[in-house]
Amino acid sequence: MLELRLVQGSLLKKVLEAIKDLVNDANFDCSATGFSLQAMDSSHVALVALLLRSEGFEHYRCDRNLSMGMNLGNMAKMLKCAGNDDIITLKADDGSDTVTFMFESPTQDKISDFEMKLMDIDSEHLGIPEAEYHAIVRMPSSEFGRICKDLSSIGDTVVISVTKEGVKFSTRGDIGTANIVCRQNNTVDKPEEATIIEMTEPVSLTFALRYMNSFTKATPLSSIVTLSLSSDLPVVVEYKIAEMGYIRFYLAPKIEEDEDETKPQV
Amino acid sequence: MLELRLVQGSLLKKVLEAIKDLVNDANFDCSATGFSLQAMDSSHVALVALLLRSEGFEHYRCDRNLSMGMNLGNMAKMLKCAGNDDIITLKADDGSDTVTFMFESPTQDKISDFEMKLMDIDSEHLGIPEAEYHAIVRMPSSEFGRICKDLSSIGDTVVISVTKEGVKFSTRGDIGTANIVCRQNNTVDKPEEATIIEMTEPVSLTFALRYMNSFTKATPLSSIVTLSLSSDLPVVVEYKIAEMGYIRFYLAPKIEEDEDETKPQV
Amino acid sequence: MLELRLVQGSLLKKVLEAIKDLVNDANFDCSATGFSLQAMDSSHVALVALLLRSEGFEHYRCDRNLSMGMNLGNMAKMLKCAGNDDIITLKADDGSDTVTFMFESPTQDKISDFEMKLMDIDSEHLGIPEAEYHAIVRMPSSEFGRICKDLSSIGDTVVISVTKEGVKFSTRGDIGTANIVCRQNNTVDKPEEATIIEMTEPVSLTFALRYMNSFTKATPLSSIVTLSLSSDLPVVVEYKIAEMGYIRFYLAPKIEEDEDETKPQV
Repeated sequence: MLELRLVQGSLLKKVLEAIKDLVNDANFDCSATGFSLQAMDSSHVALVALLLRSEGFEHYRCDRNLSMGMNLGNMAKMLKCAGNDDIITLKADDGSDTVTFMFESPTQDKISDFEMKLMDIDSEHLGIPEAEYHAIVRMPSSEFGRICKDLSSIGDTVVISVTKEGVKFSTRGDIGTANIVCRQNNTVDKPEEATIIEMTEPVSLTFALRYMNSFTKATPLSSIVTLSLSSDLPVVVEYKIAEMGYIRFYLAPKIEEDEDETKPQV
Repeated sequence: MLELRLVQGSLLKKVLEAIKDLVNDANFDCSATGFSLQAMDSSHVALVALLLRSEGFEHYRCDRNLSMGMNLGNMAKMLKCAGNDDIITLKADDGSDTVTFMFESPTQDKISDFEMKLMDIDSEHLGIPEAEYHAIVRMPSSEFGRICKDLSSIGDTVVISVTKEGVKFSTRGDIGTANIVCRQNNTVDKPEEATIIEMTEPVSLTFALRYMNSFTKATPLSSIVTLSLSSDLPVVVEYKIAEMGYIRFYLAPKIEEDEDETKPQV
Repeated sequence: MLELRLVQGSLLKKVLEAIKDLVNDANFDCSATGFSLQAMDSSHVALVALLLRSEGFEHYRCDRNLSMGMNLGNMAKMLKCAGNDDIITLKADDGSDTVTFMFESPTQDKISDFEMKLMDIDSEHLGIPEAEYHAIVRMPSSEFGRICKDLSSIGDTVVISVTKEGVKFSTRGDIGTANIVCRQNNTVDKPEEATIIEMTEPVSLTFALRYMNSFTKATPLSSIVTLSLSSDLPVVVEYKIAEMGYIRFYLAPKIEEDEDETKPQV
């Protein structure tokens, strides 16, 4: 028996909007600690990891560990039917091949039940080792989303270069080149507008913009995004989810042929 | 000679937006009582009935009964050219094969005349008998519109089941099932947010969602929609138009093969 | 060496949005007096003339006259990456085959450099003689834009007829005819809402709506548009750009076969 009641149901709606285009089918794992998902994108390049801790739910009952295979497109269709202020409860009976999403309007005048068939999905859980990163950039998520979108109109890849002064996003394409520098700035009035850099050494890494743009669909989940970079590791693009967890995207850097052009020049 | 002056011209704009996708060509009937239309949709499944009573017009001159055949798509194109605050006057000379729509801006600084050719349309006026309905549901039109749209993402038909407690909208499709229950509630602060059920016996009827969604294009005309249901009659979906009339849609229920699944379970 | 710093960078963004669909490639001419452009549209029917006077820039350095060939679509793509409140600086070194657009956010926390390749474009500068116009209509640009768009849903050409009382825009098409009259009115509260007519003799000229609609993409640049008409000259559709210049569109009238229908009847 599984019953998870999430008062701020819009969070689950936003989670699905954030990952449904990247991942088609995935297993949601429920345990005493929380509701989680780990999945490769459909082209097996990027990895998504989601965690919603049990403490974040108003009611969290999970009698035994359960892995539920869902088509994320169908799940997103059902969650779109929930109002933004609705309470969402996720229910599954032991051994059942369906899951039920219940939506309650704030006034309790409208109650909806959506029942979806579960799928059998082969997946192996990858262990993601804790790592030390050379540079961690914390910046407004809307700014990061805007930069990825803007650069996509010029080129296909982005070079992210971090120094103590700031982070530079660069691209080049047929029509020209673009460099966008965001300066370190932690003295702004609103903490969510700060750009803060912690680094042990400068890094400069190249990524496919297509995936970065896909990750930025998580922007509505958090006003802040964190980029963790090391020269020999996949970047981690993390959006915190309220007080209850996170969604993290992992993407391996591309190996550039002409390294000279990717040196940090912030 | 026909001359109808409607101060709240946006009503006529909304009426055309509500019916132009459902009906291609139709006769507008003008008489001393009002301006009306009755037409089957182009697939001859649903019926639309419109009435704008003469008292609702600032000026209403209709010397003799007149039936004017119009292409609703073309008429909607012309009415789109009226501003939302414009006064609209509809004019036709006796025996003329054209109708003129005049738009006056509130300041009278902009005056437009649009002249449209009339058509000969064969149509027989159906007598719609007054009927007693088993259940009448009055609910917010935006809520009804949202429900029809949401259910369309899951299935093709909706089962509407009414009991004293509330009204349930259900569907099923390849990806699962959905049930949405709106509870009777007449104690809300704003009367237009109430859901009120009058019934003599429970009903449960199945309809094509495609038509229901088409009817909800009338939502901007009224904050309230009324559904009148009887087990052996077409449903009536009615939107009142300000103080001056209504637009009513009639749709026959589908005969379900497995009646068990459509029993009301509110 | 060229360096032009424009504090209200959004003006340059709007200029490009106004002309990029009309003109593919064009030379921007820089001289001590200002930054200008003159180009025929790609079908060689309409002419665009742009002027941004040097006084309008916070900093304007242009060591010698320079003509820079640019693809306007690519330039618009780059300028779209500037924020609406950004300061835009345009830079080019002598003899360089590239131009650089620099965008500075108001807080100076985000600095972007976009470098674009220049093109060699053959173009001859047309001398546009100063002319006396029979009628000059000054009206709200949004109203003019709305009228051109509305008439396009009925016909392909617009007859613009000016008398002392007002200006009439007429069209006819398969579904009917349309006449929109804007009365002279200079007693409104807000000067930008006035319609003011200066004329020496009535004019009535016919133009292709397709081009008029294209010109109205400049509407965001100015709340007022000025139409200058003479029976034997191209119309001039002018949008002023803040305190610093203008964008002007020139379009030759069509020769109507049945002149009777185009006589002014305001």
